[in-house]
Order: sequence, then C-alpha cells, then structure tokens
Amino acid sequence: MKRKNVIIVAGGKGLRMGGDLPKQFIPLAGKPVLMRTIEAFFAYDNDINIVLALPLSRHAYWKELCAEYRFAIPHLVVAGGETRFHSVKNGLALVEGGIVGVQDGVRPFVSNEMIKRCFHAAITHRAVIPVIDSTDSLREMIDDEKSKIIDRSKIRLVQTPQVFHADVLQRAYETGFKDTFTDDASVVEAMGIDVHLVKGEVTNIKITTPLDLKTGELIIGSSL
Amino acid sequence: MKRKNVIIVAGGKGLRMGGDLPKQFIPLAGKPVLMRTIEAFFAYDNDINIVLALPLSRHAYWKELCAEYRFAIPHLVVAGGETRFHSVKNGLALVEGGIVGVQDGVRPFVSNEMIKRCFHAAITHRAVIPVIDSTDSLREMIDDEKSKIIDRSKIRLVQTPQVFHADVLQRAYETGFKDTFTDDASVVEAMGIDVHLVKGEVTNIKITTPLDLKTGELIIGSSL
Repeated sequence: MKRKNVIIVAGGKGLRMGGDLPKQFIPLAGKPVLMRTIEAFFAYDNDINIVLALPLSRHAYWKELCAEYRFAIPHLVVAGGETRFHSVKNGLALVEGGIVGVQDGVRPFVSNEMIKRCFHAAITHRAVIPVIDSTDSLREMIDDEKSKIIDRSKIRLVQTPQVFHADVLQRAYETGFKDTFTDDASVVEAMGIDVHLVKGEVTNIKITTPLDLKTGELIIGSSL
Repeated sequence: MKRKNVIIVAGGKGLRMGGDLPKQFIPLAGKPVLMRTIEAFFAYDNDINIVLALPLSRHAYWKELCAEYRFAIPHLVVAGGETRFHSVKNGLALVEGGIVGVQDGVRPFVSNEMIKRCFHAAITHRAVIPVIDSTDSLREMIDDEKSKIIDRSKIRLVQTPQVFHADVLQRAYETGFKDTFTDDASVVEAMGIDVHLVKGEVTNIKITTPLDLKTGELIIGSSL
C-alpha cells in the first residue's frame, strides 16, 4: 500500500457563525471541531501524514489550543491561502507521493468506514469523491429573476474526503486558479481526468451554522 | 385579501426512518410532526382553509391521534394519492379560489415570517417558491459512471410552502402526471408560467431521517 496523506483545509473565516472565532475552533461537545476532524483520520491510520492548512494569523492560537487540550496527534501545519485552492496547494508541498485525501476541517463526522472506502477506491482510481443524493428539489438560475427546475435524480451533493493519486493532484494544482474551482475534483477534472464517485454519508455534515453545531453535538451523543 | 388555503401533503411512507410509523406521525418533542406543521399555518392565519392529504389507510389512525392529543385545529382530510402530484390534485378539489399554498407535511419548522413572505408575494405573482443556497458542491450525473461539476452559485434548494393563485394551480393540475413533476412549481412551470423565488430558511428542514428528528428537537428547544 502506498503512503497515505491527508490535507485538512481550515481556512474558513467562519463569518456565518457570528462572533470572532472561526468555526473550526469552536468546541463541539467539549473539543474543537478541527481536533475531531484530525482524530478521524488518525483513527483510520496512525501512520497517515496529516497536513493542516490554517491561516498564518491563527498558527499561534492553534499551538496554544493544542497545549490546552493536550492534543498529541502528530501533524504538520502550513499557511492557509486566500482560497481553498491556495490552501490545498500549500499543503501539497508537504506531500511526497502516494495517495492524498483532502478534507474540510469542519467535517468532523466522517466515519472510519467512509475514509476507508474513499482511500481504497483511490488505489485503482486516480480521483475519488464521496457523494449523496439531494432530498430537496433543485432549481437552476438562468438570470437574476428567471430559474428552471432541474432533475434532482441526476444531481449529487459532494462531500469530503476527496482522494487522489498525489502526483495527479500535484500536477492539477500547478495550473492557475479559476473561480469555477469549488472543490478538488473540479481542479483535477479541468485536467481531463475522470472522477470516480463513492457513497458519502448523510451524517458527514459541514459545521457552518449554529444549528450545525447543535446537530453535531447530537451526532456525537447518539448512535445515529 | 383573497381567501387563503393550504394543502398539507402527508403521503410519505416514511420508509427511510425504518419502522412502520410514517414520519409525519412520529412525535417531535411530544407532538406528531404533522400537527406541528398544521399549527404553523393556523398560527399564521386562523381563517386559513387547511386541507390535509393523507393516505386513506391512515385516516382512522389520524382521527384517533387527533383525539389522543386533543388536536382541535379545524382542517379537512382528503385521500392522499400514489404520488405527491395526485395528493395535491385531490386537495385542490376542496379549494375554492383565492391563494393556495402547498406544504410538505414533514416541514414543521416553517416560520410565521416565511409563510407571510410566501403568501404576500403570491398577491402579485402567480407562482411563488422559497429557496435557499447550497452549501455543498454539486455534480450532475451524465450516465451511471460519468459526472461533471456544476456551478453551485446558480443552484437553489427548493422548500415549501409553494404558493399559487388557486385557479392557476388548478388549471396546471388538470394536465396528466409526468415523472419530472417533483414539486408544484414544476407542474405550473410546464404550463409556461414563471415562478417567482423568495428567501427560504435553513431551519425549514424536512424530517426524513432519525437525525432530522433529533435536529428538529433542537430547533424546538432553542432560539435558533
């Protein structure tokens, strides 16, 4: 098995939460969201190379937080960039071959089975992303006013970890940044590489609102 | 102001929850989901004509439930059809002009402000639906294997209540059923009528999984 890596992207300014503390630092059932995310990957593989992309202005705070919580999981910290694209690019500088996952720092509930599923599929596929169905009807805006229904059975909601052959992802990130790059799959896809889909999880939520944080506490406290 | 009506669609078999009790009957903080949904519309307007579309096989059970909970909000009950389309069509038979909203029975958290916003917009627009942005990246399936990224800034998630001029909705529902009808807006749109979008609410969730039910209890218990 090739070397495994994960880049955990925690560049968010967390403005949607209100307050000054970016959402990745907010304690969730007594422990910061970001520590829970890191723990999930460490639990999957104690030898995984964990690279955390964090805004430079927060590095000192993170160090204090790790001391305060006696957080001892080994990981590297790189400067987060202005966008997710730039954060991943910085993280990739600390990846030496093998397979690399990219994980949203604010998705702490990814299960061990799901990480396994994504990394396993990336042995045979160069680009793997987990998706779930949409339970809502969906519309596409044609302009500011007009919109049209789209067939939701054809749409998938994209989650993380998105997992790649490291050399493929590194090559993809050598291109310049485009606005259409909303995730890592989109960067790889621009290079003409097919993306393989695997099953995501409804509970693998992104913590972006106060309601998400409350839901997160429920997920931790229950066997859902 | 024209007469107001709301058709509450509760045809779901609730299989995703596991167990035999359809999700609309499950108690949420001590009261069945469906009663909470009805209460939201009654609180908005005590004179609103409430029509509940429920599978015929559940009518007796619903009557018992109303007695058990001393549920006294006046409402009519019609037979739910095989699909949402057929349920709404049955409900429309009990609507005599004015403005009509269609609400998912399993969306009990719609706020008073939001119901007001939707019904108010329907005074000047013939078809109104509430939408929210997607916080996830989205992909479109091209076939069973291949998919492509789509621009999520152009996509909206559709909620309810969807509100219409009653005559417009009744005319739209005289057409035959199509698989592409996943909501009421899509039926009206097939007639060539423009759909006006208003702001939805993140907390206006659909109760479809055990996690949703737990989240729902949080929404009730907090000031989110």
